[in-house]
Amino acid sequence: MKVEIKKIAELIKGQIEGNPDLLIENISKIEEAKEGDISFLANPKYTPYIYTTGASAVIVSNDFVAEKPVKTTLIKVEDAYQAFSKLLRFIDGKDNRKGIETPSFIHSTSKIGKDVYIGAFVYIGENVIIEEGTKIYPGTYIGDNTKIGKNTKIFSNVSIYHDTVIGNEVTIHAGAVIGADGFGFAPGKSHYKKVPQIGNVIIEDYVEIGANTSIDRATLGSTIIGKGVKLDNFIQVAHNVEIGENTVIAAHTGISGSCKIGKNCMIGGQVGIAGHLKIGDNVKVGAQSGISKDIKDGEIVIGSPALPYRNFKKSSILFKNLSDLHDRITQLEKKLKEKSDQNG
Amino acid sequence: MKVEIKKIAELIKGQIEGNPDLLIENISKIEEAKEGDISFLANPKYTPYIYTTGASAVIVSNDFVAEKPVKTTLIKVEDAYQAFSKLLRFIDGKDNRKGIETPSFIHSTSKIGKDVYIGAFVYIGENVIIEEGTKIYPGTYIGDNTKIGKNTKIFSNVSIYHDTVIGNEVTIHAGAVIGADGFGFAPGKSHYKKVPQIGNVIIEDYVEIGANTSIDRATLGSTIIGKGVKLDNFIQVAHNVEIGENTVIAAHTGISGSCKIGKNCMIGGQVGIAGHLKIGDNVKVGAQSGISKDIKDGEIVIGSPALPYRNFKKSSILFKNLSDLHDRITQLEKKLKEKSDQNG
Amino acid sequence: MKVEIKKIAELIKGQIEGNPDLLIENISKIEEAKEGDISFLANPKYTPYIYTTGASAVIVSNDFVAEKPVKTTLIKVEDAYQAFSKLLRFIDGKDNRKGIETPSFIHSTSKIGKDVYIGAFVYIGENVIIEEGTKIYPGTYIGDNTKIGKNTKIFSNVSIYHDTVIGNEVTIHAGAVIGADGFGFAPGKSHYKKVPQIGNVIIEDYVEIGANTSIDRATLGSTIIGKGVKLDNFIQVAHNVEIGENTVIAAHTGISGSCKIGKNCMIGGQVGIAGHLKIGDNVKVGAQSGISKDIKDGEIVIGSPALPYRNFKKSSILFKNLSDLHDRITQLEKKLKEKSDQNG
Repeated sequence: MKVEIKKIAELIKGQIEGNPDLLIENISKIEEAKEGDISFLANPKYTPYIYTTGASAVIVSNDFVAEKPVKTTLIKVEDAYQAFSKLLRFIDGKDNRKGIETPSFIHSTSKIGKDVYIGAFVYIGENVIIEEGTKIYPGTYIGDNTKIGKNTKIFSNVSIYHDTVIGNEVTIHAGAVIGADGFGFAPGKSHYKKVPQIGNVIIEDYVEIGANTSIDRATLGSTIIGKGVKLDNFIQVAHNVEIGENTVIAAHTGISGSCKIGKNCMIGGQVGIAGHLKIGDNVKVGAQSGISKDIKDGEIVIGSPALPYRNFKKSSILFKNLSDLHDRITQLEKKLKEKSDQNG
Repeated sequence: MKVEIKKIAELIKGQIEGNPDLLIENISKIEEAKEGDISFLANPKYTPYIYTTGASAVIVSNDFVAEKPVKTTLIKVEDAYQAFSKLLRFIDGKDNRKGIETPSFIHSTSKIGKDVYIGAFVYIGENVIIEEGTKIYPGTYIGDNTKIGKNTKIFSNVSIYHDTVIGNEVTIHAGAVIGADGFGFAPGKSHYKKVPQIGNVIIEDYVEIGANTSIDRATLGSTIIGKGVKLDNFIQVAHNVEIGENTVIAAHTGISGSCKIGKNCMIGGQVGIAGHLKIGDNVKVGAQSGISKDIKDGEIVIGSPALPYRNFKKSSILFKNLSDLHDRITQLEKKLKEKSDQNG
Repeated sequence: MKVEIKKIAELIKGQIEGNPDLLIENISKIEEAKEGDISFLANPKYTPYIYTTGASAVIVSNDFVAEKPVKTTLIKVEDAYQAFSKLLRFIDGKDNRKGIETPSFIHSTSKIGKDVYIGAFVYIGENVIIEEGTKIYPGTYIGDNTKIGKNTKIFSNVSIYHDTVIGNEVTIHAGAVIGADGFGFAPGKSHYKKVPQIGNVIIEDYVEIGANTSIDRATLGSTIIGKGVKLDNFIQVAHNVEIGENTVIAAHTGISGSCKIGKNCMIGGQVGIAGHLKIGDNVKVGAQSGISKDIKDGEIVIGSPALPYRNFKKSSILFKNLSDLHDRITQLEKKLKEKSDQNG
């Protein structure tokens, strides 16, 4: 890109202090920026860099007051981080590919909307519906009867099993698997018998699903990922799980079958949640926790098994020097014995 | 589907109480079912729904006795859950695709059996053998010299490295990787040197492997997944591991190199097992456990490091309120000191 | 293969004791080897097998002294394991495929070097550069502006997003995802807003990346995997992480955003590292640890939260029988009370 600072200021509704005509070619971190770069300052920790940065322009908040001379051009905005994000989104939004590359495999019964991109080596099964503006990157597999909404983006080598329903403005990263069989087996005489998994997966609008994450289809009914949910990489969502709106889950977390997770939860990485539990709304779960009981709205838990945050914190500190407690007990026993001996 | 209740009763060997001629179009949960649906009742918790369900038919066990009038048609069987599973399997079994889609890449030296399905964008290397009735979904890669048995199902975007041996009636879900190099490096002077991994992977009959699970090839010899083993998603099976028959392992569990795991074990999710260990038969390992020692037949362990189940349970409860123990020790010290001071 | 023992001895610079003309056809473990096989003895635990092995030849160290008659031919070398590894590398190195299979999709603006292998169903975007001797296996996706060095090997169904930079002699296993968006969302009024991720991923020379591992692109700048780093399967490397040279990380470990990890570290499996931390050089982290603070050079930690190794060890042993401590405290309280009652 090559764009004048004044054009950027216009986009992010900022006031310029300095030269409005310099050309910006790149975006960088304030501590690494050089001529032609634009950067931003939101974290006070980085304030010293504003006096030394090589950036041609830096986005700062209106309340920023320089304590020393600043060489770079400033763009003052209400919220520097939000403004910078807006600029990034503007630049990032340039992915306007559309059309159908060859070879691809599209079953004749499928319906492909306007301005859809279908990459080479994409496979689209029977009766699939893909609505306008959606992009399917190369090597992705879409099973029969799947329905995908508008302006959704599915990256490369994703596998979407049959009967999946995906909303609008959804993003699914490479290698994700949506709708594989839930892990259901009934004990038989000599071996396990598979419990067929004939439900599906529903992914609502604005969901983002990380690379190589897997969401299993329901045994019956649907596994549901609510509107605006954000799932990081390598998350295991088992059959019949339901995740409420705007819940965010970090990498490597596993959610066992039939759990119902509320809205606006924040769940850390490598958390394990046992089957059939109910997690309330606005719950926070620390990384690596093991959840084996229901959790009420608004609770904050951590540990395996999970405890209220304060308990865990206190107990962890004592655990670190558990041998001190042990020594103190031994000491007490010794003293008490001495005393008994004396008294005896 | 559109099938009369009497046809279903025939399939699952049930007795009808009610109208045998109604048409069933769908399968649902008893609490969500509506006209045209069939459902089942196996868990007593759901008994109240049988009086209110909209289902046209419900499969119940012979010993079910209605305490109030039931509107839906009942199909009475010996074991409602088993019968329902059978019905599901009957419906699920309709995947009868066969033939070779184009474009696909099949090396001329490979042998493809009768009624095999090979999806578009499948790659089949040199000297591969695929026996009759097996299905390979789109985008899957099969390396040289691989042998796949009968009626096996390999879903989309799976990668199977060279020399792999896969049995009959195996299911491998999307994104799984079979036969990648084991993680073996020998320390060198300035950097690690790769230890070549020239063994292979053997997957015996009736195994099911979850989405994105990875089974590494052996350094020498074979990594072996025994008959009837069920692996959930994201499981890491390292080089030279052997897993005994009918062992079941939940998601995100990692098994380090050269472990031998017995038969009929149940291993929870997110478990880590250190290298070169021997886990006996019929062992149960709780979720998130860390195993660093051999485990004998029939043991039940949990925790990281893993403990016998009862120890872990008791210790966990005390850990929760470890600060109480601490306070009691402090209190004892104080009292003992007062006593000493008094006596002194 | 069919090769005389004397040829192998030449390759690994060994002295033969026995018949130098026997033909070797296969490589096996000493305890499983049969006629025509070559094996090695490095671990003293396996010494007894040298008197019973069916192998035609066994590689041993110069200091091996037979205590009983040995039937097999010995090849004596300075370091049996290193010599054996060299032999394995020699055999493993036979993958000399090159050329471009069809169908593949290669954008006209891309530059493909000499002796490159591009498998069927590979997708190569705009302005990609692939240098000589590199192999891209079937079904892999390479995004726009990616640059890949010499003699690198990328296995099947890998997804590499745009702008990635990959060095020489790198190995990337099947299903890995390089350069997917970092997990960055800013809280909005009613839902999260995506923070665009416009940085990239840089993978330096001699790196090996395991199956289904995922390395996210930086928000700004680069996520960097240093020279000679070895990553096992299912590792999550978040945005803007930097990993120093020759660090080795085991499966299922997750590294949160902006962590800087030093050189020559050894990090176990299923470890979680919180965001923005600095891990020094030569650090060792035990499996399943949870790291929430910076770690200095050379430290050895384990546990969740992580402790110095000795603390963890001592505390874990006490944790196992925490109820004993509890009982001893109760006992002390009782005795002290009795004493008070007596004295009172």
